Amino acid sequence: MAETLIAGVGATDFGEHAGRTGRELFAEARSSALEASGVSGSDVDALYYGNYMGETAEEQSHQAPLMAAGIGTTNLEATRIENACASGGYAIADGVRAIESGAADVVLVGGAERMTNLETGETTAVLARAADELHEGRPGLTFPGAYALLADAYMDRFGGSRDALAHIAVKNHANAATNPKAQFQSEIDVADVLEAPTVADPLGLLDACPITDGAAAAVLVSRAYAERNDLEAAVSIAGSGRGTDTLALQAREDVTRMRAAESAADAAYDQAGIAPEDVDVAEVHDCFTIAEVLALEALGFYEPGEAITAAADGETTADGERPVNLSGGLKAKGHPVGATGVGQLVELTKLLAGTHPNADAVADAEVGVTHNAGGTVATAAVHVLEVDS
Amino acid sequence: MAETLIAGVGATDFGEHAGRTGRELFAEARSSALEASGVSGSDVDALYYGNYMGETAEEQSHQAPLMAAGIGTTNLEATRIENACASGGYAIADGVRAIESGAADVVLVGGAERMTNLETGETTAVLARAADELHEGRPGLTFPGAYALLADAYMDRFGGSRDALAHIAVKNHANAATNPKAQFQSEIDVADVLEAPTVADPLGLLDACPITDGAAAAVLVSRAYAERNDLEAAVSIAGSGRGTDTLALQAREDVTRMRAAESAADAAYDQAGIAPEDVDVAEVHDCFTIAEVLALEALGFYEPGEAITAAADGETTADGERPVNLSGGLKAKGHPVGATGVGQLVELTKLLAGTHPNADAVADAEVGVTHNAGGTVATAAVHVLEVDS
Repeated sequence: MAETLIAGVGATDFGEHAGRTGRELFAEARSSALEASGVSGSDVDALYYGNYMGETAEEQSHQAPLMAAGIGTTNLEATRIENACASGGYAIADGVRAIESGAADVVLVGGAERMTNLETGETTAVLARAADELHEGRPGLTFPGAYALLADAYMDRFGGSRDALAHIAVKNHANAATNPKAQFQSEIDVADVLEAPTVADPLGLLDACPITDGAAAAVLVSRAYAERNDLEAAVSIAGSGRGTDTLALQAREDVTRMRAAESAADAAYDQAGIAPEDVDVAEVHDCFTIAEVLALEALGFYEPGEAITAAADGETTADGERPVNLSGGLKAKGHPVGATGVGQLVELTKLLAGTHPNADAVADAEVGVTHNAGGTVATAAVHVLEVDS
Repeated sequence: MAETLIAGVGATDFGEHAGRTGRELFAEARSSALEASGVSGSDVDALYYGNYMGETAEEQSHQAPLMAAGIGTTNLEATRIENACASGGYAIADGVRAIESGAADVVLVGGAERMTNLETGETTAVLARAADELHEGRPGLTFPGAYALLADAYMDRFGGSRDALAHIAVKNHANAATNPKAQFQSEIDVADVLEAPTVADPLGLLDACPITDGAAAAVLVSRAYAERNDLEAAVSIAGSGRGTDTLALQAREDVTRMRAAESAADAAYDQAGIAPEDVDVAEVHDCFTIAEVLALEALGFYEPGEAITAAADGETTADGERPVNLSGGLKAKGHPVGATGVGQLVELTKLLAGTHPNADAVADAEVGVTHNAGGTVATAAVHVLEVDS
């Protein structure tokens, strides 16, 4: 099985890009990744591209061939994947498989989303389509409400406080403050989070990620291709895993366990030959503060019920033993849905390669993990990245 | 590289399914395919699922985990692919790759679309989002108009008549008349086509496929899995190819050549080790009569400019030397967008296995091809199926 190296990464700033189109945003990320990789666009065999809401936000479906244009060849495979907020993670996984199978030497994985051009209420309604329309959408559940239910269920079962959750938002804002790609580059404190308007009890406005425009891309290559072309690739993808769960929360036996992410993590760890304790740094899907807690437990970093205090205890902060979301996470770096999974890969690659502004916090890190989730984790993709030595 | 066998196929009737949801339609196709295959649902490793317009027609994005529910496991990979009308063909291709790579032993590929619940004008507008919004959508181009431009360009360059195109519609209706799964089970004649209302000159209403609800699914397995489980699989997927072209027609050097389909066919033929002349039967993407002409040329069955008379000359009719669209094609069997590519696979598998009502026309056939195209063939997927001996 061919090994997958990350030859180059690129991304737009995450934030508001008024007046720009999704294709412009992706072209910027794509060009940046290709330039960083040293790979000629005409060598790209396949594009796996994540996008969630292009048909609504820009009246543009069928985006894969559009985003492939400009790579330097029209003779490639181009696939748009829509798995809600996990679209990007699933795109990476299919890109890795294309290389591992020997079908491709060079794969561009990426994603883009234009969101701020809609009214916030409209965006929230479009996002709600990622839940089960029959059992959740029609009764009026939106994602802030769904994650509030998860937070309630978690705290009912395991305890935990609003204050502990607030520390997660504080940590991720602190990390974003030194990341020029992030949407929010300002620090907040626990009082800010606790005093913010309630969105869906127990979650407040600062427990939630923002609405974001942005794009991200990465050039994946086989080791054989990298050697033939004298490419420098500091980081490899050593493990790739995907999982699913029921779309509707009501069908799950235990809503405090994210089985899709557990399955994805198991598969990724198996392939990489590692255990959770080997992971030095992680980028996880913190669309809400409670989501980071659930992610850390699904990844096996904590037993069920124990991750809620990780940020407050300083274990996942930049100076903690295993920093989480050094990029700022979805919470503060931003969450352009289709771009998010690949955005995590971009950030983690730079952290492991030592080229990220926050890389000093993990100077000795050798193993990192990305965790990307769709909806209330009905889909999840986990990737293990390793410094290539 | 593991070989891919088709263990079972299933589909709903194509047509109007008023009052039924996409999930119901897909459940019917999925159950039918699993039952035909003899494979236990809990053995399914991955679902690749095509859907084009679920967010609009049913306010349901993130359909992959929804459609995976009921398979018999929640621990699998589930991916929704949206490549416009080629969503299903691309889903098949990723499913084949999952098996070839050794990552999966059993993959369910499928697709579903609910379309007739919208007004026809609204559906046409949603379909137009599969074209380039900036360069085609905004100026008002819809797909009947786009294919009319292609027909004009073709006839300008090579000649050909409305009458010759009409024979394609007549042929496909004749085939559908004996296919109980087809939306239209009535024959038409050339005069009917020529006298039908003009949709976009030179194309009339009977040059166009209908708007359709439906779902299709196929269970793909590795040969090793089939042998371990004593499965009977009469047909294999010997070649899989994908291609792309510019989304906007204006960016192409020659709009009478469908480069995406040519690339996809080349790749599929290469893998199968065959040439176009080895193909005994084909299901091609005839969303409009002119599209069948362009498909037959892209597949290498005819030189450019020569396929337009194939139906009129009886070469592609049921009693011709290489029957095309024995199912009735998109034209008469129907075109539930996300299901169409897998629907072609379902029909061709039955034709090669001798279990299709129209199978007598190709009793000695050993090699068949499916050709599935997105938009004005900005994406295309081609698969070579062989009788497994």
